[in-house]
Amino acid sequence: MSVYLGIDVGGTTIKIGLISQEFKLLKKHAIDTRADTENANQIVSRMMQKVQELLFENGYSFSDVIAMGLGAPGTIINKSGLYAFAGNLPFDNFPIRDKIKEYYSGPIFLGNDANMAALAESRLGAGQGSKDTFMITIGTGIGGGVVINDRMYTGFNEAGAEIGHMVIRLDGEYCTCGRNGCWEAYVAAPALIEQTKQAISEHPDSILAKIVQPDEKITGKTVFLALDQDCPVAKEVFAQYAYYLQVGMANVINAFMPEIIILGGGISNQGDRLINSFKQGTLDDSFLFGDVEKPEFRIATLGNDAGMLGAALFAADSLEDGLSF
Amino acid sequence: MSVYLGIDVGGTTIKIGLISQEFKLLKKHAIDTRADTENANQIVSRMMQKVQELLFENGYSFSDVIAMGLGAPGTIINKSGLYAFAGNLPFDNFPIRDKIKEYYSGPIFLGNDANMAALAESRLGAGQGSKDTFMITIGTGIGGGVVINDRMYTGFNEAGAEIGHMVIRLDGEYCTCGRNGCWEAYVAAPALIEQTKQAISEHPDSILAKIVQPDEKITGKTVFLALDQDCPVAKEVFAQYAYYLQVGMANVINAFMPEIIILGGGISNQGDRLINSFKQGTLDDSFLFGDVEKPEFRIATLGNDAGMLGAALFAADSLEDGLSF
Repeated sequence: MSVYLGIDVGGTTIKIGLISQEFKLLKKHAIDTRADTENANQIVSRMMQKVQELLFENGYSFSDVIAMGLGAPGTIINKSGLYAFAGNLPFDNFPIRDKIKEYYSGPIFLGNDANMAALAESRLGAGQGSKDTFMITIGTGIGGGVVINDRMYTGFNEAGAEIGHMVIRLDGEYCTCGRNGCWEAYVAAPALIEQTKQAISEHPDSILAKIVQPDEKITGKTVFLALDQDCPVAKEVFAQYAYYLQVGMANVINAFMPEIIILGGGISNQGDRLINSFKQGTLDDSFLFGDVEKPEFRIATLGNDAGMLGAALFAADSLEDGLSF
Repeated sequence: MSVYLGIDVGGTTIKIGLISQEFKLLKKHAIDTRADTENANQIVSRMMQKVQELLFENGYSFSDVIAMGLGAPGTIINKSGLYAFAGNLPFDNFPIRDKIKEYYSGPIFLGNDANMAALAESRLGAGQGSKDTFMITIGTGIGGGVVINDRMYTGFNEAGAEIGHMVIRLDGEYCTCGRNGCWEAYVAAPALIEQTKQAISEHPDSILAKIVQPDEKITGKTVFLALDQDCPVAKEVFAQYAYYLQVGMANVINAFMPEIIILGGGISNQGDRLINSFKQGTLDDSFLFGDVEKPEFRIATLGNDAGMLGAALFAADSLEDGLSF
């Protein structure tokens, strides 16, 4: 029996999946990324050893692999095999496909991790039934993934769909990309944490302030824990955060007009409470005049498996398109 | 010989073109729109009479027409035949295809005017050689048009690519769409005129102020006339305007990552002076890290014919896709 390899490279772990031709995740394994202590060659070498072990343990060898798909943060280019920009990982301008080929000589297809996740959610998860979806992953950063006519869309150089790096406030908050005022700087988890800290320092007697134990870290969940206790200060923080979400979501709609917008990442665990906080405002803000169909909002359903599944789907799509990298 | 009909409905005129199977504009004619004095039925009726005349004068009849393409401002839906939202024209939620069918029973394909122009520029104009282009038409508003893999892209409900209605300044200037801070409110012609007026009132002794004759209207060209005379105040106005362009252009790049960005509309007559004002800043601002290909900026080449040509191209594409509206 033949399988796909779906690999999801992240800042702390690398997830490796064996995936069936029907896109079921048969087996998975995670290893540490070790971005701080190893170089690109070492990481890929260790990753491929683990791939080989996982195959072997499950009765497969590399010859059973139809193709490998690999998703990773930043800009990783399928056409050239180059990991052009990796942010916190030691992969900048690293010819990652060539390196992997030293271990596995079959077809290898590369893409951004958020795009891979979007493809999986679109076809196997929350976006099922639609061919035009947009996934927004809210985590340390904002990942954007666009699926148009059932295919991943990344622009001519494969570096697009970076919707977190859309300025929504001219000359606003500093963003890690070097600009000021990017959406990411208002709605990624670190921004929500900063907004929570700010509110706590302004309202030291609030429930929000009091639920944080001494020496306990403020996280992206803190504001929601206080909301559970009807904290008025937490409500204010959440309302402001929802407004930031609304403005960017309406920008996404006006630009891409997806049928379904899928929310992923840790904050999406808040489910309907999250969607209801910005949904009506977003639709009101969007360019939806006259009798036109409205986009829908949904929470992602595949969790941490989305990256691996999407990588396998992308590999299958690439083969179908006649690519043979 | 068979021809396409390419029709471009605008706020003041309706342009009608007879277009060859090789997409050459054989004949064209413009009539007044009369949006203030006539209703939708009257306008379409008058338009179709003129279409018939133009055909007849040139030795054609409706039976020689392969298909009609019609572009118009706002949201006009090919799938349903509904002109959903028309802005200043009396067409809101008007079943325009049904009405046209009373005069011409062949295939009729509908779309937004900026999208039609983008398709024409992409395939016959400034975007030749690329399959992924983005056209921004700067006029009374900002028209956006996306071509992906050589096809017009408008989102699942055909209302997308409204890139002018992307907020770049949270809670900023009022925009005609009802939001605050849209890109259009900073870079459309009325915004530049407002910025020019403001500078004139602050600097009544500037060259910029003095080149405006008493009772002469300030237009989108005024600042450029003063720039020709090296006016420092005009330079400031233009630099600020270029910055607004830069921020939105970088948003467009980060989202869509087109290979070629085409600038159309009156202000694009400024050519290289315009492109050079924002080009480097835009590329610096964009998510283009590592060895990735950079988008290019070009000025539109088809002028006022783009809408008619694009409508004919869209009609041909629709037929090729097996549509038969």
